[in-house]
Amino acid sequence: MNATTTYTARAHTNIALIKYWGKKDEKLILPMNSSLSLTLDRFYTETSVMFDEQLKDDLFLLDGSKEKNDKISNFLEIVRQKANITAKAKIISKNHVPSTAGLASSASAYAALALAASKAAGLNLDKKELSRLARRGSGSACRSIYGGLVEWQEGIDDQTSFAHPIEMSRDFDIAMIALVISTDFKKISSRAGMKRVVETSPYYPAWVQNTAKDLRKLKQAISKNDFETFGEVSEENAMKMHALNMSAHPHFNYLEPDSIKAMKIVEKLRSQGVSCYYTLDAGPNVKVICRRKDIQAIVDRLSDSFGQEKVLVAGPGPAAHLI
Amino acid sequence: MNATTTYTARAHTNIALIKYWGKKDEKLILPMNSSLSLTLDRFYTETSVMFDEQLKDDLFLLDGSKEKNDKISNFLEIVRQKANITAKAKIISKNHVPSTAGLASSASAYAALALAASKAAGLNLDKKELSRLARRGSGSACRSIYGGLVEWQEGIDDQTSFAHPIEMSRDFDIAMIALVISTDFKKISSRAGMKRVVETSPYYPAWVQNTAKDLRKLKQAISKNDFETFGEVSEENAMKMHALNMSAHPHFNYLEPDSIKAMKIVEKLRSQGVSCYYTLDAGPNVKVICRRKDIQAIVDRLSDSFGQEKVLVAGPGPAAHLI
Repeated sequence: MNATTTYTARAHTNIALIKYWGKKDEKLILPMNSSLSLTLDRFYTETSVMFDEQLKDDLFLLDGSKEKNDKISNFLEIVRQKANITAKAKIISKNHVPSTAGLASSASAYAALALAASKAAGLNLDKKELSRLARRGSGSACRSIYGGLVEWQEGIDDQTSFAHPIEMSRDFDIAMIALVISTDFKKISSRAGMKRVVETSPYYPAWVQNTAKDLRKLKQAISKNDFETFGEVSEENAMKMHALNMSAHPHFNYLEPDSIKAMKIVEKLRSQGVSCYYTLDAGPNVKVICRRKDIQAIVDRLSDSFGQEKVLVAGPGPAAHLI
Repeated sequence: MNATTTYTARAHTNIALIKYWGKKDEKLILPMNSSLSLTLDRFYTETSVMFDEQLKDDLFLLDGSKEKNDKISNFLEIVRQKANITAKAKIISKNHVPSTAGLASSASAYAALALAASKAAGLNLDKKELSRLARRGSGSACRSIYGGLVEWQEGIDDQTSFAHPIEMSRDFDIAMIALVISTDFKKISSRAGMKRVVETSPYYPAWVQNTAKDLRKLKQAISKNDFETFGEVSEENAMKMHALNMSAHPHFNYLEPDSIKAMKIVEKLRSQGVSCYYTLDAGPNVKVICRRKDIQAIVDRLSDSFGQEKVLVAGPGPAAHLI
């Protein structure tokens, strides 16, 4: 094998509504609980991969600049083993996320890489296999293989831990507004944060049990097209995840003053009849779950407080695909 | 019995370091877990009580204005039953807390009332009995019967649930800086908040177990004069209490944007070598636990961000006493 064809894949980021927060296997990235996310149309990663025996090392260019990234080489090793090849790869990756948005995620990155690299290595993986492969790079990446609402079933081993799409009614009307809250404070990575929580939070066993219930409730709400329950369960699950961080040793907290301010604005809008709910991940940004008809009212209110350049609107996005 | 002598008592507020958050008996106010607090010198309530058979109803004057308060009449009923009297009472109460500080608490109020009313009713209760009586008005009031560091042992019934002082070394150097954060948001009372948590939080059973451990660690730190462990355990216990609120259904949160801002300032000061820790109760105010030598540095830093009128310094306060 000399140089292979270059394959380019696009994968969209996803935001969990039932959170993934803790691993039962650090190496295989098997989660402690199943999770459910929404893939977003607005934020995505495009990645091209070509394997070439002339290369001495994997070469990774992110947004035009050369990066050293052992995690990516480790991930490519998994692809090489599956394809039974030894060639190193050239990877060119570009994040399509407004700069400084803090929404670039490893989910879209590893989903795009899994698709492009497996193709370039001559593999022809089905979606389930792709999802399993993406999971090895970053847990939540297994969900970005699919579009719309996606469940990652925790499974018990490498074979059984993968994502699948959740059917939603054509009427299921959902949008997401991301509020970008910049921060000068160095945050704990989600990988390190969830590990500390699993190891030290006295609340963690209850989280695992309770999240299984939340997932059932959320799926039931989706099947009934019940937006209010959908939003409420999502918001409460996010709060329980952030509560875990506050109960860890040492405790930590991703919430910034502006996160609290935005959460209160959403609660206020809700009390005024706008059906909207928030979720937050391993950072201070607040994502508002709403219906399309309410987007403008929410964007206006958040723009008043934070500036319109901080407010980004997204809808359900497509599955990972070759371009 | 005609009009009795007027007795006036002063009791100081206390701030819990190991929090009381949830009752196992709503009527008797028996807590789910033992707690530990510091009585403060700076904030107190003075209350005068006189029983008079000429009165048709209990008369309650708070800070000069007449108040209707069924809780106080219910509390006086307990005193009347103990003393075997029927006369109604005139109560004059004054809170010595900077106005709008949000630090006036039912703890100092019911501790002062328990002492003054029991005396005026002709009872001569010892401190343990006084603590049990104060508990019936407001749980945390049982701790304000004592000065300094005080443990409220949960007990199993009315007889066994009361506070006692914790011996601390003469060298144990502790001060508390209260940062007053005003808020326009209506908060959930501690009574309602803790009730919701007990009934709905999946994390609550773990809180009860874990807080017993925190209490042991804190008492050990006190006996070893280990300020860092003392502060760390206090801060972590407070965060676990606030995490409970975020995990309740519906979830709630006493933290305001400025609470988070202040918490980060304390963390920053700590990273710069100032040994200081925070605790928060059923509201947004942040109380900083520190040593006397560090008061000025902390006050200066908080005053820079919030204005010096918001920053109040306190030290260990005395037991409730007649004046």
